[in-house]
Amino acid sequence: MAHQQYQELLETLHECMEECNHCFDACLKEDDVKMMAECIRLDRECADICSYLEQAISRNSPYVSELASVCAKICEDCGNECKKHDHDHCQKCADACFKCAEACKKVA
Amino acid sequence: MAHQQYQELLETLHECMEECNHCFDACLKEDDVKMMAECIRLDRECADICSYLEQAISRNSPYVSELASVCAKICEDCGNECKKHDHDHCQKCADACFKCAEACKKVA
Amino acid sequence: MAHQQYQELLETLHECMEECNHCFDACLKEDDVKMMAECIRLDRECADICSYLEQAISRNSPYVSELASVCAKICEDCGNECKKHDHDHCQKCADACFKCAEACKKVA
Amino acid sequence: MAHQQYQELLETLHECMEECNHCFDACLKEDDVKMMAECIRLDRECADICSYLEQAISRNSPYVSELASVCAKICEDCGNECKKHDHDHCQKCADACFKCAEACKKVA
Repeated sequence: MAHQQYQELLETLHECMEECNHCFDACLKEDDVKMMAECIRLDRECADICSYLEQAISRNSPYVSELASVCAKICEDCGNECKKHDHDHCQKCADACFKCAEACKKVA
Repeated sequence: MAHQQYQELLETLHECMEECNHCFDACLKEDDVKMMAECIRLDRECADICSYLEQAISRNSPYVSELASVCAKICEDCGNECKKHDHDHCQKCADACFKCAEACKKVA
Repeated sequence: MAHQQYQELLETLHECMEECNHCFDACLKEDDVKMMAECIRLDRECADICSYLEQAISRNSPYVSELASVCAKICEDCGNECKKHDHDHCQKCADACFKCAEACKKVA
Repeated sequence: MAHQQYQELLETLHECMEECNHCFDACLKEDDVKMMAECIRLDRECADICSYLEQAISRNSPYVSELASVCAKICEDCGNECKKHDHDHCQKCADACFKCAEACKKVA
């Protein structure tokens, strides 16, 4: 992976992890938590795999491509779920997830 | 840490991680998810730190004692929250958390 | 995944994580650390993905199959590297890795 | 934690995680790996706790203060070990570790 592509991907993953965790926290504080259950579940899945991939990339793991492929799928699913909800934190999270899914596909 | 104590602690942490993650999943499927919000939050906190400490112990980390001290506190809080709820998964999780808190305190 | 298969896989992953981290620690204490460099690198890769998959399975993640596929590959590579070295910790680690690779393939 | 302090800490942790993992990878490629063994060990400890704390902060964990206290100690130890070695990756890593230790102490 070229150095610039690597730096951009790390930043994109970091932003996605942040938005997913912020969305996770905010969903748990909403009035209708039940409606957000799938969002809460996928926010955790997505934050965890983004965080994992950040570490894998920065330690020069031989498995970046395989992990990025899984990450792209999880980001896409999480983005699609968040997109359904009008909350600001969900919409911002969806944007970060779709951007991250695209970036992951390029190295997958 | 003596070898037997180490093996017992690893097993206790593993069980606690499993129960917390099972409780996290089950809480998200309950009818009244809102009532379980704090339980969902603490289940994730507790599963993550138990999993982290399992790895730290098994790689002979120099920081087992400090991490076990944080883990004991999180296990205790998670156990106290789970204890409030009648669901089977919460009661089983509370038991695993309290057992793990005690085990962690011995190495903290 | 059937409950028994799930429990067996969790145990197999946990043993593999333990052996990989023990091998990581032991390799760093060997006289010829340079010869163990690839083993050290793969031990970390393998312990981390096994630990990650343990959590994913126990929280009923929708991505167990994809993650198990990546885990199987990493376990196999780590087992093949460890197999080359005569140290007890390497041979035990190789066995745990190959067993775990097989178990992961069944759910991948 | 005020929003700006939070953003700065997240960025500092992320940089430290990156430098530690880069140093881990580079140490494994050095001619004299044996001399770098403690550096390799602490790079992993430090990258892992920084990554963990990034997630904890961004999900609004109730345990940021306790975790930051452990993280500060690990960063300091890793910085002190890296500082001993002339390699560029070690010197850059030491700087990132000391900066991160200071940032963590402020929220501990």
